[in-house]
Amino acid sequence: MEESPRGWWGVRTLSWYVGGSQVLGVACVVITGVWLGQYHGGYAWDGTGHQFNVHPLCMVLGLVFLYGDAIMVYRVFRNESKRNVKILHAVLHLLALVLSIVGIVAVFDFHNALKISNMYSLHSWCGMITFILFILQWLIGLALFLFPWASRWLRSAYLPLHVFFGLGLFGLSIATCLQGITEKMLFSSPETYSKFDPEGVLANILGLLLLLFGAVVAYVVTHEDFRRPPLPEEEELSAHFKTLTEGGTPSSP
Amino acid sequence: MEESPRGWWGVRTLSWYVGGSQVLGVACVVITGVWLGQYHGGYAWDGTGHQFNVHPLCMVLGLVFLYGDAIMVYRVFRNESKRNVKILHAVLHLLALVLSIVGIVAVFDFHNALKISNMYSLHSWCGMITFILFILQWLIGLALFLFPWASRWLRSAYLPLHVFFGLGLFGLSIATCLQGITEKMLFSSPETYSKFDPEGVLANILGLLLLLFGAVVAYVVTHEDFRRPPLPEEEELSAHFKTLTEGGTPSSP
Repeated sequence: MEESPRGWWGVRTLSWYVGGSQVLGVACVVITGVWLGQYHGGYAWDGTGHQFNVHPLCMVLGLVFLYGDAIMVYRVFRNESKRNVKILHAVLHLLALVLSIVGIVAVFDFHNALKISNMYSLHSWCGMITFILFILQWLIGLALFLFPWASRWLRSAYLPLHVFFGLGLFGLSIATCLQGITEKMLFSSPETYSKFDPEGVLANILGLLLLLFGAVVAYVVTHEDFRRPPLPEEEELSAHFKTLTEGGTPSSP
Repeated sequence: MEESPRGWWGVRTLSWYVGGSQVLGVACVVITGVWLGQYHGGYAWDGTGHQFNVHPLCMVLGLVFLYGDAIMVYRVFRNESKRNVKILHAVLHLLALVLSIVGIVAVFDFHNALKISNMYSLHSWCGMITFILFILQWLIGLALFLFPWASRWLRSAYLPLHVFFGLGLFGLSIATCLQGITEKMLFSSPETYSKFDPEGVLANILGLLLLLFGAVVAYVVTHEDFRRPPLPEEEELSAHFKTLTEGGTPSSP
């Protein structure tokens, strides 16, 4: 088979992108932790600002880092059976969901303890929409792709939507973090922020690293050469299934 | 040819998505205009807040609405020659660029007149990165796709990157707007924002409409069934070009 113009550069670079994404993702989590630990007193579940600090850390760890890793698993585990990779995809998303619930409870609790209004800012609206659609996406994905009752037609019709909304919500999650960083800096340190104090620069760098992480994950997931080829036994099964359900020939694509 | 599972729903729905995107895009521009006109005194080039107001209006009109329309032209003008659509794509981007320059000059001028620091916030960092990469993307696109000197190999290798970065920058542009809305509300009306006053609700709705516009544009551009099929004369030319340059047969795909 003739190599595509970009084929020679193709799949060999995948491990570099995945490695880079992990460095970026860990950097995001660590910088979030250090920012709120160093400049805002660290973490506790006590209804004070320390409890608020749990919120960004959980969201960046759950709805950015784990979410990003979850959507890359089909590219990373190319030689595992599809079923195992699906389970890993679902479990990583479930972990992200649990962390995001902890993060959301932390900030609601903190607001209620200090009698601060909930859900008035654009950040909170975007965050809540991301969270609700994330749960819906997870449930529909579980029902259609992990359990056996969905037809091949339905799976095939829904898959592009699952990918589109999955990647879109991942982008929305990062956009919500950027608004969160903006809010935190303007609420806590508006004077020093405009003087390029280290905290503000660190928070901005965190924002850029979140964007870079998102960009690398999106590239890995959408790049044609990184697409996971079906394993031989999957091709055989798929062809057999097609013969049984649609009357096609096993050799048809 | 057998219809794909989602084929029957396919291209017939495109006009609805494109129409919907235009309603959303115009709504974004109008709401931005009304928000700053109604609640912040309108528009002027006088170094006051009225000049600041020019900034969001130009950015939403240029780097969201026109940018979004520019990347949809290949789907909308399916029966125009590719060259004409390319020129329209480039011209709409150029208009977006001119408007964004006006918008950026407006806010720098306003800051300088009031001795407010420039470029300290995450919003300004994201905005400047979007702007610089947008110019680079436009220049590289112009050089490779509109002028005839780039080889078929180079165009084919660069196209997926052009599409990826184009769509990514469009997303970044919208994410930057959401940070801008957050900044504006927290700088101008922090007290009333937390009381669900109409201005804050309007600003949040603007944020959601920007997201919806972005989602519809991204869907139209990435949905397989909406892809522009090559016109018969383009297929012929392409096959002829392939024969001349690569020694392929005109009938090869």
